[in-house]
Amino acid sequence: MEVKVLAIKEDILGANKERARKNQKRLEEHTILGVNVMSSPGAGKTSLILKTIERFKAKVRMAVIEGDIASRMDADKVHQQGVPVIQINTGGACHLDANMIEQALNHLSLEQVDLILIENVGNLVCPAEFALGVHKKIMLLSVPEGDDKPHKYPLMFTEVDVVLVNKIDVLPYFDFDMSSFIQAMAGLNPAAKVFKISCRTNEGLEAWFFWLQEEINQIRRKKQS
Amino acid sequence: MEVKVLAIKEDILGANKERARKNQKRLEEHTILGVNVMSSPGAGKTSLILKTIERFKAKVRMAVIEGDIASRMDADKVHQQGVPVIQINTGGACHLDANMIEQALNHLSLEQVDLILIENVGNLVCPAEFALGVHKKIMLLSVPEGDDKPHKYPLMFTEVDVVLVNKIDVLPYFDFDMSSFIQAMAGLNPAAKVFKISCRTNEGLEAWFFWLQEEINQIRRKKQS
Repeated sequence: MEVKVLAIKEDILGANKERARKNQKRLEEHTILGVNVMSSPGAGKTSLILKTIERFKAKVRMAVIEGDIASRMDADKVHQQGVPVIQINTGGACHLDANMIEQALNHLSLEQVDLILIENVGNLVCPAEFALGVHKKIMLLSVPEGDDKPHKYPLMFTEVDVVLVNKIDVLPYFDFDMSSFIQAMAGLNPAAKVFKISCRTNEGLEAWFFWLQEEINQIRRKKQS
Repeated sequence: MEVKVLAIKEDILGANKERARKNQKRLEEHTILGVNVMSSPGAGKTSLILKTIERFKAKVRMAVIEGDIASRMDADKVHQQGVPVIQINTGGACHLDANMIEQALNHLSLEQVDLILIENVGNLVCPAEFALGVHKKIMLLSVPEGDDKPHKYPLMFTEVDVVLVNKIDVLPYFDFDMSSFIQAMAGLNPAAKVFKISCRTNEGLEAWFFWLQEEINQIRRKKQS
């Protein structure tokens, strides 16, 4: 319907892909696992990152890149946990891109990092289109958002390696049909892992931690071989 | 940080503004109130529209324009209420724009309509930047998203005439600080009306209906004078 806009977008996407490849190469040179964390606003990205820090920081050297239109609230929370954090303020842009990540990487001591979690801008659309150069793309879908979201934002649900269904502690108060959701995912993206979690009660988080540890191990094995 | 992208955006925004002005003129020629309904995915836009249809359809001639990346689920729900509805599938674009609305208006019998509700793509970023040519911009913020959203998505909260805080029936289960939210709104956009509602229990909806009826009356008075 809006051909002009889409044509411009493709051009930007091509340049972004090239930069993303460079970022990924750079992460691999330093044996770092990069994870792009996406969701709607308020679905629990920061809570998941804070829980993951709590669990991993004693054994894995972490860094966090926080993406927001404005504010540094999330970066301050990560900083309080003693983890290196870079806040990107996109000043209006609705997603992070590879160029922003390149600049953030320039400000981290990469030789001292094993895992970088990147919190994207809260948005189910554009972040799915812009590669950052990370190894894994994950998303949170929170129960209050509803089980119909894969039908409405199919690219995001198709692109990700993991969906964390968050806020399962409030399932009794919402009409969220888990089997409809699981069925929609099986149709769109059967390879994606689905974890049911609550960052408030910690329910289900162990399975996510196990998955993440396996991915970190794999990056290390790949480097050694 | 991403100068190239922003420069292109400004160009698109200029052309969009011009088209939006034409849409608004067209609505006014037909004495139609146009309302742009925005929010994060799953905050309750469709529920609010359905509740508003239920209340207004006997006395106000309504039409609905549904914006989604993909799917026609919401349009089908509106259609079941016997209200004319146009579904726009943006095919990837993260917001509606004035050109899309112009095309949708071409498919409506405008001489038989008093109120058009436009459900934008679920997104707190880009929809705030793209004028559609309507008289009022409203948004829903749902309680599970958290009270910090005005700090993170300031343009959206600054641009709107009304914020409906939805899902207040689940306030006991979430850490949503209403006074923090009200304070943030007072700083960003003191002219905006704030309604606390639940589309599930109907709590607070009367105030919203009253506001909407007043706006419809005003368009009529403006036409007569």
